Amino acid sequence: MTDVAIGMDIGGTNTAIGIVDRGGKCLASAVVSTAQHEAVVSYVDAVSDTLQKLMARQTGWTLTGIGIGAPNGNFYRGTIEHAPNLRWKGVIPLAQMFAGRFGVKTVLTNDANAAALGELLFGAARGMRDFIVITLGTGVGSGIVVNGEVLYGHDGFAGEIGHTIYDPRGRACGCGRRGCLETYASAGGICRTVFELLASSTIPSELRAFSFRDLTAAHVTEAARRGDALACEAFAITGRILGLKLADAVAHTSPEAIFLFGGLAKAGDLIFTPTQRSLEENMLNIFHGKVKLLPSGLHGENVAILGAAALIWKELETKPS
Amino acid sequence: MTDVAIGMDIGGTNTAIGIVDRGGKCLASAVVSTAQHEAVVSYVDAVSDTLQKLMARQTGWTLTGIGIGAPNGNFYRGTIEHAPNLRWKGVIPLAQMFAGRFGVKTVLTNDANAAALGELLFGAARGMRDFIVITLGTGVGSGIVVNGEVLYGHDGFAGEIGHTIYDPRGRACGCGRRGCLETYASAGGICRTVFELLASSTIPSELRAFSFRDLTAAHVTEAARRGDALACEAFAITGRILGLKLADAVAHTSPEAIFLFGGLAKAGDLIFTPTQRSLEENMLNIFHGKVKLLPSGLHGENVAILGAAALIWKELETKPS
Repeated sequence: MTDVAIGMDIGGTNTAIGIVDRGGKCLASAVVSTAQHEAVVSYVDAVSDTLQKLMARQTGWTLTGIGIGAPNGNFYRGTIEHAPNLRWKGVIPLAQMFAGRFGVKTVLTNDANAAALGELLFGAARGMRDFIVITLGTGVGSGIVVNGEVLYGHDGFAGEIGHTIYDPRGRACGCGRRGCLETYASAGGICRTVFELLASSTIPSELRAFSFRDLTAAHVTEAARRGDALACEAFAITGRILGLKLADAVAHTSPEAIFLFGGLAKAGDLIFTPTQRSLEENMLNIFHGKVKLLPSGLHGENVAILGAAALIWKELETKPS
Repeated sequence: MTDVAIGMDIGGTNTAIGIVDRGGKCLASAVVSTAQHEAVVSYVDAVSDTLQKLMARQTGWTLTGIGIGAPNGNFYRGTIEHAPNLRWKGVIPLAQMFAGRFGVKTVLTNDANAAALGELLFGAARGMRDFIVITLGTGVGSGIVVNGEVLYGHDGFAGEIGHTIYDPRGRACGCGRRGCLETYASAGGICRTVFELLASSTIPSELRAFSFRDLTAAHVTEAARRGDALACEAFAITGRILGLKLADAVAHTSPEAIFLFGGLAKAGDLIFTPTQRSLEENMLNIFHGKVKLLPSGLHGENVAILGAAALIWKELETKPS
């Protein structure tokens, strides 16, 4: 018999689900639509059906639990709370719903915390006790690990570095405030920076051909790789702002390393070089040269599934049943 | 026999030392000059002499350990490292020096972490597991408690919220950078704000009679209490900036409460009201109404001694010998 955990990564469009063993190997996986289910019950039905089919493939698996990474996920309550990118409004007791279906321990947290656990158990943070994972995607998420444990805080919502404020009079954020780091360092953030540069400069750029609706962070990355000066400048600005706010994060928790994860992190040196420079420039002297800025050690399609499954393996490690 | 711990609070000018019981009662105390000792060995001699005299007063005391709160104190190494306000340069292995003299466990950390432990064991944070203590004095210090433990981080220097950056182009800070929270929210910071207002406004104010050298935060507080509009505006600005950066701190660690401690906190509503307003305005919506802003529950002359002694009581509680 092989002990397995289910890992589930809930995105606004799709949910990736998989069966993961203790070594972090994804044994089977599938994708279910999130967006097509207006009612959460019909969504839980669809995911449960798919999971049962996956589990039926192999008779030698013993299911130990279900780990869920979700936007606005609350670890303590097992709920998704007021997630702006999901159709289900209010507070959704999703962990309880899946626990009821499968009769196993079900743990839910936000996607960045799950990514941090994936990094700790299966990735480049193995052996570290204090580190931060920053997810640079549609939003900017963060998972903070302190003394080998994810920092949840009093209310279960610790690790919202994407919503620390860079400029109180800055860009409007989806959260209703202004100038959050997310409005600068996310995929959409770098596109906004490109549009500011298109307006303020006369630098020739292939990005002048795009509408705001059509431009993606991938276009900016491709242009920068081809040497487009304006795209390169957008990365430089993004890294400067990200490094400044990461210096604040270091002052809070003194991590050994900060991992950049997600779409924008795949731009490599384009984002790492200016972020590293700004981080060093803006850190308090006692931290100089001590904090590593690293890419994720997890690769492949199933990274988010591994992080979600890690919630269960971590739970079993901490509290053996 | 009564178990006692020595608490030692090292300031740039003086060191307050005391004998503290497990209930947080200061049984005896004394003050030794810090500044007059050019060599750290002569300082350790002087403190040790005074401690031996204090301990000799009572035969029923069993010394369990020495707790030290010190600027730039490193918990892991028991060292004071490059403290700008002390005469001893470089890295000073002070915990080891006192442990050698007294043959007991000696624990050292920075003064704000000690204040947080004092609040946890003897003050208004009793029973809390996640909170932050902000010390508003000559500098701005912070002690962050997570899961009932002080957050030290990988390098032992976590909790430097005073050196998070409010404005990268802002006021020069003693740390060599610009715009740290400390340059706005410390005793000296509010005086700098007063001088900016004296220059930029035509508001009549009794503070127009002071030189920069003579003005203290106490003068600003007294003037504000008498209704001086410019002094009140200085408090409003200080609270606005402090609340903004505390909202960032909440996004990192999701505390149950934030305690304001130290000289400027004694201004009461003058500082609490604008800080609370700004904190609520600037926090991410999921935290609204959930984080208490509170005064310290510790009072009297020996608060810093209690915090330092709490280092020992906390250590014994966590790792019973």
